[in-house]
Amino acid sequence: MAKQLKKWQGWLLFGGSMVIVFILGLLVSSLMERRAEVVSIFNNKRMVFEDAIVAQNEKFKADYPREYNTWSMTEDTSFESKYNGSEEVDVLEQRPEMVILWAGYAFSRNYNTPRGHKHALEDMRKILRTGNPGIDGDADIQPATCWTCKGPDVPRMMRELGNGVDQFEPGNFYHLRWSQLGNEMVNTIGCSDCHDARTMELRPARPALYEAWERAGKDVNKATHQEMRSLVCAQCHTEYYFVKGTDYLMFPQDKGMTCEDAEAYYDEIGFYDYIHPLSKTPILKAQHPGYEIALQGIHGQRGVSCADCHMPYMSEGGVKFTDHHIMSPLANIDRTCQTCHRQDAETLRQNVYERQDKCTEIRNRAEKELAAAHIEAKFAIDNGATEAEMKPIQDLLRKSQWRWDYAIASHGATFHAPQEVTRLLSLSVDFAQQARLAIAKVCAKHGFIGDIPLPDISTKAKAQQYIGLDMPKLEEKNQRFLDEIVPKWIEDAKAKGKLLEQ
Amino acid sequence: MAKQLKKWQGWLLFGGSMVIVFILGLLVSSLMERRAEVVSIFNNKRMVFEDAIVAQNEKFKADYPREYNTWSMTEDTSFESKYNGSEEVDVLEQRPEMVILWAGYAFSRNYNTPRGHKHALEDMRKILRTGNPGIDGDADIQPATCWTCKGPDVPRMMRELGNGVDQFEPGNFYHLRWSQLGNEMVNTIGCSDCHDARTMELRPARPALYEAWERAGKDVNKATHQEMRSLVCAQCHTEYYFVKGTDYLMFPQDKGMTCEDAEAYYDEIGFYDYIHPLSKTPILKAQHPGYEIALQGIHGQRGVSCADCHMPYMSEGGVKFTDHHIMSPLANIDRTCQTCHRQDAETLRQNVYERQDKCTEIRNRAEKELAAAHIEAKFAIDNGATEAEMKPIQDLLRKSQWRWDYAIASHGATFHAPQEVTRLLSLSVDFAQQARLAIAKVCAKHGFIGDIPLPDISTKAKAQQYIGLDMPKLEEKNQRFLDEIVPKWIEDAKAKGKLLEQ
Repeated sequence: MAKQLKKWQGWLLFGGSMVIVFILGLLVSSLMERRAEVVSIFNNKRMVFEDAIVAQNEKFKADYPREYNTWSMTEDTSFESKYNGSEEVDVLEQRPEMVILWAGYAFSRNYNTPRGHKHALEDMRKILRTGNPGIDGDADIQPATCWTCKGPDVPRMMRELGNGVDQFEPGNFYHLRWSQLGNEMVNTIGCSDCHDARTMELRPARPALYEAWERAGKDVNKATHQEMRSLVCAQCHTEYYFVKGTDYLMFPQDKGMTCEDAEAYYDEIGFYDYIHPLSKTPILKAQHPGYEIALQGIHGQRGVSCADCHMPYMSEGGVKFTDHHIMSPLANIDRTCQTCHRQDAETLRQNVYERQDKCTEIRNRAEKELAAAHIEAKFAIDNGATEAEMKPIQDLLRKSQWRWDYAIASHGATFHAPQEVTRLLSLSVDFAQQARLAIAKVCAKHGFIGDIPLPDISTKAKAQQYIGLDMPKLEEKNQRFLDEIVPKWIEDAKAKGKLLEQ
Repeated sequence: MAKQLKKWQGWLLFGGSMVIVFILGLLVSSLMERRAEVVSIFNNKRMVFEDAIVAQNEKFKADYPREYNTWSMTEDTSFESKYNGSEEVDVLEQRPEMVILWAGYAFSRNYNTPRGHKHALEDMRKILRTGNPGIDGDADIQPATCWTCKGPDVPRMMRELGNGVDQFEPGNFYHLRWSQLGNEMVNTIGCSDCHDARTMELRPARPALYEAWERAGKDVNKATHQEMRSLVCAQCHTEYYFVKGTDYLMFPQDKGMTCEDAEAYYDEIGFYDYIHPLSKTPILKAQHPGYEIALQGIHGQRGVSCADCHMPYMSEGGVKFTDHHIMSPLANIDRTCQTCHRQDAETLRQNVYERQDKCTEIRNRAEKELAAAHIEAKFAIDNGATEAEMKPIQDLLRKSQWRWDYAIASHGATFHAPQEVTRLLSLSVDFAQQARLAIAKVCAKHGFIGDIPLPDISTKAKAQQYIGLDMPKLEEKNQRFLDEIVPKWIEDAKAKGKLLEQ
């Protein structure tokens, strides 16, 4: 019986094998045709560049239509609208405590959910954080450094003007104020930010990444292709700071890539971004440490690159290419998660949401406690607390706010490393509450016992009023800035051929 | 060229197919032989049982030598020794704050890291939590219910004595005190706890699981085999409580399987395990919710069963069987993690340790804050705080301690669901600190400002002395209990044939 079965199975397998051989033949033939098509694309390039940086993205359209077209789709915000309920959500409206946390810093004016790369310049010009230079004689409130991640005109101008660390070098990129480069910064984040225009090899265009790696004894130029598929993102989606006095842009990576490593770096050089006007705390503002947080999660630890999920492969005709419509991988679960994970899309989506929700629960607590702590610290100072009494409290607030901001500032952190984000937010709550307890004791010493009165900060408007912002005036000026100044920048750039007609 | 290549490849594939067909033939033949061997094992069973529960594990040895031998290896604690530095670590020595948290409850006497199932009875008799009944006239401090998870003598005696909920039914299992069943509970956790002795099908032996599922509208008997591979564990490695007055054992799963769901269940029935003698808080003691925590993590969510990792398949001769040497999957990464994950063992081990470390960081904070809060609450009460003033503080302490205990009480929680454990510990710190702030304000109201003095609880001995435990006396009595009483239990069981000679 067993032997008969064996014979019968043997013939079936033989027949099956024959069918498979035939299909494989067809596949090889098809593969050959595809290769021929790819080779033909590269041999028939229309544009040949001699410079690594070509700022006008349109110049790449003819030779790389698939990449260009998908890149253009970063203008589309329908996924954001579907996911957030609006293409751009006013986060301060949702979370008025954040206005308190960022009091004294431009982020307290305006902070929205992100849109695609094609909106980068437009969003930067209209955000109230860059001020309204030129309106009613307003001066710049930001240095040119603020443009750094906003497009390939940055490396172009760095090369043109020089980008040394010496702020006194006249005309140096870092020497300028933000509005002085308004008519130069006209091409949004695009090809040359990540590719060498001569070869289209991946090549991050910003110096800070190379410098940080060099200080750590590594060479970005020697990174593998898979590493590069993250590093082109990591040149911007990372924690950075402007050196006091020179506004030179640097990454605080010398002691390592964790939240605590960066804090130790900042503590050592005595750095702070601003002094909080309520608690007088020297605050560190975290700047989207997306790459660092991703390294803390299992995907990063397994060598999954940013592009693997945010720029999945597509196929069109005979050509396989990376989708340049960079966005949430949840928008294309079939081409992102499901490349590795065999669960259905809804399960995978719910897995992400569940992790987000758990982080958000602790985030809500952190913002509530920390906002209260800043306000109570002011109350203590107003009621006679000495500098010596406030110093340990301010140390706690600085630690708390750094961990909160680091945890929430980057895109997708709650997915990239849910446990790490939960840990950081937990420590943020912890330090804020230690501060509140210490403040209560200091106040009691100065004769006040009981609950410190907290203002009504239940809406963005109330919170902004509490910290003394005249929002209607800022908004009105911004409208004039957008109507009067920005069009001149665009016009000038077009006249000089720096911005091509689209 | 392409066509030539195709032909050449075709012949290679044909040749390859022939080789594969031959190998497949050999495999099928080998498979047939293996099947024959397995069938022969089942057809030649030496022992045939008419009862589902057979308490003497040795009776299964002849028919299931592989399972029996690997089960016997749960006596081996060399992995625990290597991992923890000792086969049984005194956790209270490592974390003296836990003595404070469990003050007024037997856990403050003795709490060690776990050993294998074969040590279950031995460890239970020697742990100071079960008291020393019969020594110097000491009465029992625990009901018979405490035996529930300690071996197949439990379902045997439940059947013999009856296990109804009526505490007044004379002789009922739940009516007895712990020591009254000392001479019956002699076979450690083994075969009949999880298997129906008649068929060896998986079948959890304890009623609480069936009852909890029934209340939730589900039937354990209809669970799939893969679910059963977790449920046999979940009958014990789960959160449970003893009903006040009857000591009937129940699972608080009616509202769901999360920490907050169980808390809502307990709150609704006004349950507490003990009143904390320092803060007078009605405390919920979490009892190893291992199954619940596992459901919160990605392995549980993907349907990985307990047995998949803790009882990996082995192969011996022609027989594939589950390894009954239940232990940490880290002891056999090649047969556990690497069944699915392709990383090297050291990487996988470090992934686990990293998650554990992040949880431990927050756990350390929770224990420190919560211990301080209990002590400070006592200070407030001693200094005139009213019941009305203490009530909200006690509510916070109950919430804090429940989350802390739930997060740390089960084995492997930091691996099973790292984010969930971090979240729970974060909330524990949060509630404890809210309590400390409230206490400071209450104390200030009653005239005390400044830091509440905290006792030295830097060692287990100091902490136990602080809460008024006479440990030398307890230990001395326990030695006599082990020397004088336990041997009589064993002797009696042997004389009655309930414990076989090994």
